[in-house]
Amino acid sequence: MDAKRETFEIRLKNSATEIEALLDALLSPTVLSDEIARPDLLRNAMHYAVLNGGKRLRPFLVVEAATLLGGNRQAALRVGAALECIHCYSLVHDDLPAMDDDDLRRGKPTVHIKFDEATAILAGDSLLTYAFDIIAAPETDLPDRSKTELVLALARAAGLGGMAGGQILDLAAEKHAPDETGIIRLQAMKTGALIRFACEAGAIIAGASSEERQRLRRFGEKIGLAFQLADDILDLTSDTKTMGKATGKDAARGKGTLVALHGMEWAEKQLRQHVEDAEELLHPYGEHAAMLKATARFIADRKS
Amino acid sequence: MDAKRETFEIRLKNSATEIEALLDALLSPTVLSDEIARPDLLRNAMHYAVLNGGKRLRPFLVVEAATLLGGNRQAALRVGAALECIHCYSLVHDDLPAMDDDDLRRGKPTVHIKFDEATAILAGDSLLTYAFDIIAAPETDLPDRSKTELVLALARAAGLGGMAGGQILDLAAEKHAPDETGIIRLQAMKTGALIRFACEAGAIIAGASSEERQRLRRFGEKIGLAFQLADDILDLTSDTKTMGKATGKDAARGKGTLVALHGMEWAEKQLRQHVEDAEELLHPYGEHAAMLKATARFIADRKS
Repeated sequence: MDAKRETFEIRLKNSATEIEALLDALLSPTVLSDEIARPDLLRNAMHYAVLNGGKRLRPFLVVEAATLLGGNRQAALRVGAALECIHCYSLVHDDLPAMDDDDLRRGKPTVHIKFDEATAILAGDSLLTYAFDIIAAPETDLPDRSKTELVLALARAAGLGGMAGGQILDLAAEKHAPDETGIIRLQAMKTGALIRFACEAGAIIAGASSEERQRLRRFGEKIGLAFQLADDILDLTSDTKTMGKATGKDAARGKGTLVALHGMEWAEKQLRQHVEDAEELLHPYGEHAAMLKATARFIADRKS
Repeated sequence: MDAKRETFEIRLKNSATEIEALLDALLSPTVLSDEIARPDLLRNAMHYAVLNGGKRLRPFLVVEAATLLGGNRQAALRVGAALECIHCYSLVHDDLPAMDDDDLRRGKPTVHIKFDEATAILAGDSLLTYAFDIIAAPETDLPDRSKTELVLALARAAGLGGMAGGQILDLAAEKHAPDETGIIRLQAMKTGALIRFACEAGAIIAGASSEERQRLRRFGEKIGLAFQLADDILDLTSDTKTMGKATGKDAARGKGTLVALHGMEWAEKQLRQHVEDAEELLHPYGEHAAMLKATARFIADRKS
């Protein structure tokens, strides 16, 4: 492992620790809303769903993109925590029996197994709702204008035209395999939208120009494509132990992936191209963008 | 029917028509997000869940409270539509097999019966998400400050400390009947929080003083209590045909209600008291508050 990569991994780990401390505080029994106490069962299920040992890649992107452009780091951490709530809600709902029906997530029982199905549905709903609470709350030190833009961009990334829409296309893909355009659209919505939001959010937090915002957004798009391609490759090459979840599943279910369509060699080449494109977009920032560039490479090279 | 009541009912009906036209437009295929097309199946399920013949009482409260205090009516309609999306998402998820397991809602198949369970979960998720999109969107003509306050108040009314938290308490109540304090808390969260938000939202939209906002909020609390008590009374006295859903169900499941605890006579008296308290809170506005006062009486007197 070279020195740069090591620095990156330490920084990612430290950021994850910081985000997890914040998420833990946001979901602790002592932080009460100003009016009504929080029902413990539901709060515990939300806490379990969120404090699950994830890499916290999305919050890391928010924080790194924001600091690159001179944004407030504390505000970026809170927006990152909000985004992680959305990501984790989607995992809880995707794992439900009516959806992907998964019992394991990162080697641990999924929320509906650990608790029950009703609690899992409500924990997902509450995490989704809480994300907007966290962004709009007075503790998030940003101008109201930025908060409005973040709420709008996050709602669009997560909703019908984004992640949730991507999930319905994914379920449909089990019955009728989509063509290449369909696969790309599905993936851009299901996994790409939140990753793109993470990068764009950094620009919003920093109050960046629309040109810079657009640049970060395109960077997010490129690494989203890389993320998905790496995932599809891993799905074919990894085993259950490394991934902590059932693998080979997408292929087994007959869902089309670009890897299945074009083969492994094409996929590896395409993956490298996405990373190069992403790095190229950050060229104007020179060495300041080293961490974001390292993230792009990490996404492509990750083994789990 | 006296003339005043008739005027109120016409106004409620006209408002419902207006809100439904807006919801229909917001969920039509021609209104596209600026980036990705909306998957039709999911959009159709959301449309079905929302255009379901409800009374649109919550949006009506938003609009009437906003106009009482001089707020922008078009903005109030959009915030009302957002609130209705949240209300309808909660119905879709509450009806799921893992929750209340209802096949009928207002005499029509529930979303998971009409579509399937996965689609119902995602339609609920997407409606919840869309509510924040609608508020934050540029088409909602309000200062960013007001939008931030609306997002925060709505997220708190709908989430862990509000409606979703109330639903988990409601599910728990099936196993262990709560005491009086527990019933009041459950109801304040499950149904009270959104009704209170509707009234408070009107004050936020109008940019009202914190004193006026507090007054509207307390009015919302009172009519929320009246709404729930009327519901519990109806649940015991009405039949399936009038309600368009299974009734006597809460009692049959052994959930405690205040009516079961204190009897019908007490409940009727208490209901009148809540309406009087609500009307009293609007005393400073005199005749201008006639519509909101009529709403309080309508909530108490409704037969379905």
